[in-house]
Amino acid sequence: MSEMKTFDLKHWSEQQMDLIEKALNDWVPREVGGSLGASMRYAVLGGGKRLRPLLCLATRQSMRLQGEEGGQGGAFDQAALRAACALELIHAYSLVHDDMPCMDDDILRRGQPTVHVQFGQAMALLCGDSLQALAFELLTPSESLVPARVQAVLCRHLSQAAGHAGMAGGQAIDLQSVGVVLSQAQLQEMHAKKTGALLHACVMMGAACSQAGALSEKLESSLSGYARALGLAFQVVDDILDVVSDTQTLGKTVGKDAAHDKPTYVSLLGLRGAQTYAQTLYQQANDALMTSGLRDVAALGALADLVIKRKS
Amino acid sequence: MSEMKTFDLKHWSEQQMDLIEKALNDWVPREVGGSLGASMRYAVLGGGKRLRPLLCLATRQSMRLQGEEGGQGGAFDQAALRAACALELIHAYSLVHDDMPCMDDDILRRGQPTVHVQFGQAMALLCGDSLQALAFELLTPSESLVPARVQAVLCRHLSQAAGHAGMAGGQAIDLQSVGVVLSQAQLQEMHAKKTGALLHACVMMGAACSQAGALSEKLESSLSGYARALGLAFQVVDDILDVVSDTQTLGKTVGKDAAHDKPTYVSLLGLRGAQTYAQTLYQQANDALMTSGLRDVAALGALADLVIKRKS
Repeated sequence: MSEMKTFDLKHWSEQQMDLIEKALNDWVPREVGGSLGASMRYAVLGGGKRLRPLLCLATRQSMRLQGEEGGQGGAFDQAALRAACALELIHAYSLVHDDMPCMDDDILRRGQPTVHVQFGQAMALLCGDSLQALAFELLTPSESLVPARVQAVLCRHLSQAAGHAGMAGGQAIDLQSVGVVLSQAQLQEMHAKKTGALLHACVMMGAACSQAGALSEKLESSLSGYARALGLAFQVVDDILDVVSDTQTLGKTVGKDAAHDKPTYVSLLGLRGAQTYAQTLYQQANDALMTSGLRDVAALGALADLVIKRKS
Repeated sequence: MSEMKTFDLKHWSEQQMDLIEKALNDWVPREVGGSLGASMRYAVLGGGKRLRPLLCLATRQSMRLQGEEGGQGGAFDQAALRAACALELIHAYSLVHDDMPCMDDDILRRGQPTVHVQFGQAMALLCGDSLQALAFELLTPSESLVPARVQAVLCRHLSQAAGHAGMAGGQAIDLQSVGVVLSQAQLQEMHAKKTGALLHACVMMGAACSQAGALSEKLESSLSGYARALGLAFQVVDDILDVVSDTQTLGKTVGKDAAHDKPTYVSLLGLRGAQTYAQTLYQQANDALMTSGLRDVAALGALADLVIKRKS
C-alpha cells in the first residue's frame, strides 16, 4: 500500500504518454490514399486523454515479473505498446463514426471540427474503417517482435470487444433506445458493451503481455472485476459530466443526451444518486485490485481515481 | 494438366459453397444489438458469388500435403474455412459502407434493397463496423482449433489487405479520382488496392493454412503473381460488365461509373482494348500457376476462368 500512497500518477502518465504519442505518430500512416492518411492522423493525433492505452500499460506494469526483461526493447513491452495503440485506434474510429450525421451528428470533438466536417462524410467513413484495420495490423507485426501466441490472444480480445458483442453492439442498442425507458439492468448492459467492453479489453490485453502466459482463474477474475467496475464508473461519470460540465471544459457538446431523450444514469438515478453510484463502483474497483495478489497496482489504482475525479 | 481438363468446377464449387454458407450461417450472429444481428445476416447471407472464400479454399487445396490430415475436422481445414469466411465478411462490410449515401448512394445490391435502405444509415454503419470486427474474431478462435502461429499470419494478411494500404486506401483514391484523368499506372494502383489487395489476401491466407509453414520464395512469388493477375482481371471485367451488361443480370445498377465520370479500364483502353487486356491477365494467371510447382492447381485455374467469363 505504501506504493499507492507515494505513486505519482502525473509523472508516470507523462512517461507513458510520451511512448504512446511517439508510437501513434510513427504507426498512423501519413501520405496514403489521397487525404485518407491525413484524416487518420487528424482523428488519432489530435489529443485525447489516452485513458485506454494508459490502462493497458498500467496492467502490463502490474504483471511484470521480477527479473523479466525490462525496458521498451522487450517483446512484452513491445506487445503492450502495440496493444495500447490498437485500443486507442479502435476508440478513435468509434468516435469518427459516432460523430457522423447519420449517428450523433456532432460537429465538435476535443474543441475541433469532427473528421466528417473537416474531410467530408465519405472520407470519415473510410477513415474509421481504416483505423479499425490498422488496429489489427499493429497487433500482428513480425513474430520476431511479438510472439505469435501473444498476437493471437490480443487479436481475440480486441475483435470481441470491438464487435457485435462489444462496442458496436452497445452502440446499436444505444441507437435503438432513444426515447425508450430502460431499466438500470438494461442501461448497464448497453454501457457494458458500448464503453465497458473496450475498457475491459484494455486490462485483459495488458495482462496478456507477460511472460506469465495464461492468467490464473483468481487473477483473471480480479482484473475482470476491476475493469468492469472502472468501465461502469467511466460511463456514470460521463453521464454526470454531460449535465454538470460546460461545452468548453468538456471539449464536446454538453446536454446532448437530454436533448436527444437518451436514457442516462442521471435520468435514471438522479444526479446525487449517480454520484453515489460512481463512488460505489470506485470502491469495487479498488477492492478488486486488493484481492488480485499483484504487487504493483499503483498505476491501476491511480487510474481508477482519475476516472472518478475527471472533469472532462 | 489432366486434372485441369477433367476438373468439374461446378461440382467442386457446390461442395465448397455448402461449407461456406453453413459456416457463415453459424458464425454471423442472430439476435444481438437490437436489429444489428439481423442487418449483419442480411448483408452476408443474401447470396453473392463467394469468389473470395472459394479462392481461399482453392489455394488451401493446392497446398494440401500428401498424407496431411484431411476432412473438415483438421486444424488447417478449420483455419481455411475461417479465413474464407473472414474474407467474405470484409468484402460484405465494404459493400455495405460503399452503398451508403455518402459513398456510392446505391439502393440496389444483388437485386435487393441495400442495407441502409433496409435498416437505416446508422445501423448500416454499425453493421459494416461489426462485420469487420467479426472477421478478426473468426480468425482467432481457441488455439485448440487453430494454431496461434496460423492465427497471427491470417490476421496479419487480412488487416493489411483491408486497411489503408489495401482496400480502404484504394477506395479513398477512387473517391478522390472522380472527374480526374488517371493514367493506366494510376488506375492500376487504385484497383490493386481497392479490389486486388483482398483477392491477393484470399490466396495468401489460403496458402498459410498448411502444415508446410512459411512458403518458399518461389512459391510465394508464383501465388502472388497468380493473385495479382486475377485481381486485375477481375476489375477489368467489372468495368466491362458495367458497360455491356444490364441491371437485372448484374443485380446492381449498371452504367454508374460513366454517370459518375469515374475512370475505368473501358474509358482508358476502349471496350475492345479492355477485353484484350483481360485475356492477357488470364494468361498471366495461368502461367503463374504452371510455374508454382503445386500439384493440384485445378480449382485455382478454374476460378481464373470463371473470373474472365463471368456475366455478373
